[in-house]
Amino acid sequence: MASASSCCHNGDDRGGSSDLPAPEQRPLGSILPEEIRQTSSLIRAQFTPGTAFAFRVISLVEPRKAELKPHLEALRRGIGRPDTPFPARITFAHYYVAGPKDFYRAYVDVSGKSAKLIVNEKLDAKRHAISDPAEMMRAEKACLNDPLIVKQISQLSLPSGSQVMIDPWTYATDEKLDVEKRTLICYFYLKGNASEVDANHYAYPLDFYCHFDMVNLKVVKLFRLPKKDFEHEVEIKQDEVQSAAAAPWGTVSLDRQNEYHPDLRSGPKKIPTPLRVVQPDGPSFRITGNVVEWMGWKFHVGFNYREGMTLHNITLDGRNTFYRLALSEMFVPYADPRAPYHRKAAFDLGSNGAGVCANNLALGCDCLGLIKYFDAHLTDINGNPRVMKNVICCHEVDDGLLWKHLNFRTQKAALVRSRTLVLQSIITVSNYEYILAFIFDTAGAIHYEVRATGIVSTVPIEQGVKSSAHGTVVADGAMAPYHQHFFNLRIDPAIDGHENSVVVEETVPLPINEGNPQGIGYHVKQEVIEKEGFADIDPLKNRVFKIINPSSRNPVNDKPVAYAVVPFNSQLILANPNSFHARRSEFALHSMWFTKYHDDELYASGEWTNQSAGDEGILTWIKGRNEEIDNGDVVVWHTFGTTHNPRVEDWPVMPVDKLQVTLKPVNFFPRNPAIDLPMSTQKDNDSKLYSRM
Amino acid sequence: MASASSCCHNGDDRGGSSDLPAPEQRPLGSILPEEIRQTSSLIRAQFTPGTAFAFRVISLVEPRKAELKPHLEALRRGIGRPDTPFPARITFAHYYVAGPKDFYRAYVDVSGKSAKLIVNEKLDAKRHAISDPAEMMRAEKACLNDPLIVKQISQLSLPSGSQVMIDPWTYATDEKLDVEKRTLICYFYLKGNASEVDANHYAYPLDFYCHFDMVNLKVVKLFRLPKKDFEHEVEIKQDEVQSAAAAPWGTVSLDRQNEYHPDLRSGPKKIPTPLRVVQPDGPSFRITGNVVEWMGWKFHVGFNYREGMTLHNITLDGRNTFYRLALSEMFVPYADPRAPYHRKAAFDLGSNGAGVCANNLALGCDCLGLIKYFDAHLTDINGNPRVMKNVICCHEVDDGLLWKHLNFRTQKAALVRSRTLVLQSIITVSNYEYILAFIFDTAGAIHYEVRATGIVSTVPIEQGVKSSAHGTVVADGAMAPYHQHFFNLRIDPAIDGHENSVVVEETVPLPINEGNPQGIGYHVKQEVIEKEGFADIDPLKNRVFKIINPSSRNPVNDKPVAYAVVPFNSQLILANPNSFHARRSEFALHSMWFTKYHDDELYASGEWTNQSAGDEGILTWIKGRNEEIDNGDVVVWHTFGTTHNPRVEDWPVMPVDKLQVTLKPVNFFPRNPAIDLPMSTQKDNDSKLYSRM
Repeated sequence: MASASSCCHNGDDRGGSSDLPAPEQRPLGSILPEEIRQTSSLIRAQFTPGTAFAFRVISLVEPRKAELKPHLEALRRGIGRPDTPFPARITFAHYYVAGPKDFYRAYVDVSGKSAKLIVNEKLDAKRHAISDPAEMMRAEKACLNDPLIVKQISQLSLPSGSQVMIDPWTYATDEKLDVEKRTLICYFYLKGNASEVDANHYAYPLDFYCHFDMVNLKVVKLFRLPKKDFEHEVEIKQDEVQSAAAAPWGTVSLDRQNEYHPDLRSGPKKIPTPLRVVQPDGPSFRITGNVVEWMGWKFHVGFNYREGMTLHNITLDGRNTFYRLALSEMFVPYADPRAPYHRKAAFDLGSNGAGVCANNLALGCDCLGLIKYFDAHLTDINGNPRVMKNVICCHEVDDGLLWKHLNFRTQKAALVRSRTLVLQSIITVSNYEYILAFIFDTAGAIHYEVRATGIVSTVPIEQGVKSSAHGTVVADGAMAPYHQHFFNLRIDPAIDGHENSVVVEETVPLPINEGNPQGIGYHVKQEVIEKEGFADIDPLKNRVFKIINPSSRNPVNDKPVAYAVVPFNSQLILANPNSFHARRSEFALHSMWFTKYHDDELYASGEWTNQSAGDEGILTWIKGRNEEIDNGDVVVWHTFGTTHNPRVEDWPVMPVDKLQVTLKPVNFFPRNPAIDLPMSTQKDNDSKLYSRM
Repeated sequence: MASASSCCHNGDDRGGSSDLPAPEQRPLGSILPEEIRQTSSLIRAQFTPGTAFAFRVISLVEPRKAELKPHLEALRRGIGRPDTPFPARITFAHYYVAGPKDFYRAYVDVSGKSAKLIVNEKLDAKRHAISDPAEMMRAEKACLNDPLIVKQISQLSLPSGSQVMIDPWTYATDEKLDVEKRTLICYFYLKGNASEVDANHYAYPLDFYCHFDMVNLKVVKLFRLPKKDFEHEVEIKQDEVQSAAAAPWGTVSLDRQNEYHPDLRSGPKKIPTPLRVVQPDGPSFRITGNVVEWMGWKFHVGFNYREGMTLHNITLDGRNTFYRLALSEMFVPYADPRAPYHRKAAFDLGSNGAGVCANNLALGCDCLGLIKYFDAHLTDINGNPRVMKNVICCHEVDDGLLWKHLNFRTQKAALVRSRTLVLQSIITVSNYEYILAFIFDTAGAIHYEVRATGIVSTVPIEQGVKSSAHGTVVADGAMAPYHQHFFNLRIDPAIDGHENSVVVEETVPLPINEGNPQGIGYHVKQEVIEKEGFADIDPLKNRVFKIINPSSRNPVNDKPVAYAVVPFNSQLILANPNSFHARRSEFALHSMWFTKYHDDELYASGEWTNQSAGDEGILTWIKGRNEEIDNGDVVVWHTFGTTHNPRVEDWPVMPVDKLQVTLKPVNFFPRNPAIDLPMSTQKDNDSKLYSRM
């Protein structure tokens, strides 16, 4: 594999501050290294020297839309700067003082020459910062050194050379948890050979786990995990550890078929020939700083610790389409009802951060062809900027045919291929990977694609037992429990402007009467959504969700210009609505949500998800206010996902499960926007004929 | 564009008969030119010399499964030939004698040295052969010369240099039609400049139409088309033609924006740079005759006049998966309830033929990269073989990432790209195009993809009127009516053998009790389908349709091996169940159908769809017999489609609407079948970094 060092190509305005354009020229620019430094320095200055800090987040506050709008509009229309002040550039920080105990949030104005502290507040003890890989490794190390764990492990007669691994999980709430204590759950696994650093320990789950206190870095309680269908956890008291040790592991044969890493397998068995994507004349895109221009599209690419990749101010042929698009939240509730597995429930954005977990995308591995990479900056634990290389890749893809017509009289064909622009980011959240991409096409549509891959989470099951009521046995002694994945895509539209409405359409039969004597007619029923609310998918009714601009009409048919949100049709959350799972992930209760725009209302499960107790998300907001959205600044939130009842084919690493949502123009253009693209020709394509080798 | 002549690369066993392998070696080989000749010669010999013939179809009868199975099995297992006789090679012909009046069907045994006529029967007068482009052009010419039409057109004051065009449609039945008369409906359109042969006449629909008698080649009746929402057709009697002429057209300005062909537009406006797919070491597939081998997959490619591309005897790593896959039928009912538009209802397979309408796929235009083309043979009107060049293309596509895992402790990633093998065919049915593809992946799945494109059918509307209750105004005077497209994919499984069962699964919450105290558990409910029947999609219940082999168990978890049919979630037919639309397309009433295998039961709307009166399809079959299917030779038929309420963006030619169905292994393999593929490397991929140009 290409090493990461071979693919360092920075965004133009991120390397340093010397040549930076004025803030007005980069209203949506990502956070800069010196803005991170300014923020942490100012915070440090508030405390006595020698105070121990643990910075978790330093990020930018989204500009107020009301302040930013006139400036974006002036840029779009190429007119002079408006009179209104340019939005201040504000950072915020989440940090701990004195270990992960006293949790603070600060806001700093970094617009001017010298930064100004606006707010610095200690947060309620029930609020907890994200948990990142660094914290997980810290927990793993400390936990493995805890005397109770050392004692427990010593009872296991482990194979020689083996190693115990820990996967720490954020603690999904139940009524027993003191939400004020920052606690991780540590699950234990076996690695057969400690020297094989990439061995798949998920194949050998051990049958105990513990609660780990992240403030004092010590084990709180140790439990035996259930191994049969209708058992629950059983606490192992300190003095019982010896007698309650798990079955000896020395007899277990480690199976190479459980490995995913090629270094630990016997080498490839089916080898496709190389396939290359070549663009001899360069790409069709042009990138300046974080602004991408391609085939009439123009947009800003953002990146932050939580949502990862974000897109802003998306215009097509100079017309507004979307103000902001980003994944708002992700929730993965497990459905194994045995304690402690009801606590397996991951908010991968709110509690871990899609930006924090973003992969360095190596040239030629994660993307194919002619690639532009974007870097980004996060904070390290000391408040210094930490560069995240290649967190977004941008490249073009040929997507087969876009349109064709053959005149059967003349046998003359006209056809245009579909070229797409892909902006891709990949995140790793412990065992799992998500490949997240915005895909632009030349027919005016934007697609959001999720590919779920990685390693399914496993729990122990009796060796030799092949079935479970709660999941699928994927290897001897390892069961992959049922679970669901929910994604919420936040769609902040600006369809020809910011005053939009949402229309829900269904296609329904016409009654049989004089106008429809044969009973074959149908019509389209439309309902304007007047107030904040929600709706569910219904493909059997051809239910379509459209964002329209009632004041902008199509010149051909006078219909309001629109973009349809073509949903990914999937099941909603199966957990009981009163369960902690459902109360914590309100957005997973319905497929579509409609809210009035509010600055900073970006996350469908609320700002704080780590150890959250629920009742803070999108349902709570709209219950509380019930605002009008018709012909206003509406935000549409689409929840989609997958009910993942694992197959053994998902083991030892899972082929991607693809989910796709489309934002599709409907009477937005006067005609097919791809009508004036060049025909597909052999001269450009240089295809070859197969002849048998 | 590359001319078709540059891409003639034949399948190895199709050029002639000299080197043909024995029939046993090509049990599923397509029809050969001499088999077509033998068939028509033998038929001609049955009639007196000088008889006028019009051959419509000469094709192969599918081998009896019971006879073929032991031979395929012997080939698969590499064992000696079984004792049972090899299935005879039988052709069938549909032909007219004495114009399209007396309609015959013959069966001919072409297995031996001399062909034998088995059956030669005159069919019931209500049966009608397919209507092909040749017949349509014949109808157009004759109709334009009919005195009634000449008189009608002369009243129109057409722009000088313009030309009237006709799109003939098969006649969708209503209670008024004498189904025994072969009749076409002729719709009239205007082409502004007769010399512009590829001008889009659909932009200028004229407001009259006629019934055209295809036996006597004359106009039966002429009608004024409705132009307002609640009108119907009005007959124009012969002596009324002059006074009832349409409004003068001389004042209409022809709008270049209605053209789709680049020669008639002002040239491309957005030009992507060339993007090439290069395979320096050749493809990963190997093709021998009509057998394709690729990454462990092996299958036969077939092609016939009606279904177009078919796949047979699909094995993966030597294991049976599917006996046969093909599109079984397509139905496009229009929903404009005004007479005569209730007669717009096209069976594009049964009444036109996906094979007959297949495009010659030119190198570098319809496919990109390293391409293998397949040719095929149909009959011409005289019973001579007619070669259809390049009707199927086969090529590889890079489909992004297939799996990835990053060890967050070591930051080492393992990842495999998704390579797919695409077999694509494109058909043109008058105004519309369908791009049909089977896509194989390396994780054991087969995807069937439909892309709908082409030009939407239009009807006249008053000039200046911008809205309609029955569709979308796409150009001044042209309205594109609402319609639906239904596809039925026939899936004849052989999951580890031919005794399979169908299981319908739903994922449902567990009740709250001691075993599920938090209310977060769910389980998978399974129901075995015992008898022939149907079911509908329900994504909110995560309804999954699995084809299992109850006798073949997964070694890891003892579950029966299975392939899931992942449906395309779409609306069913909206026409009233008692309407002719619904009765003629019974398959469109439900999403999934399950039948016992019967030889020759290949078409979901029955064998004869042209001018059919209904009650002959899949619902009628299963009502009549109600056979057991559990643990037997079951066939699964999936109906999917789109409710197409046109956007103006679908004009003048429509960007593809993509529909995809997946056949996905579930516990069929012991693990991820793509685990032993080579990692993605920069060495193989040779990707490039973008630097600003």
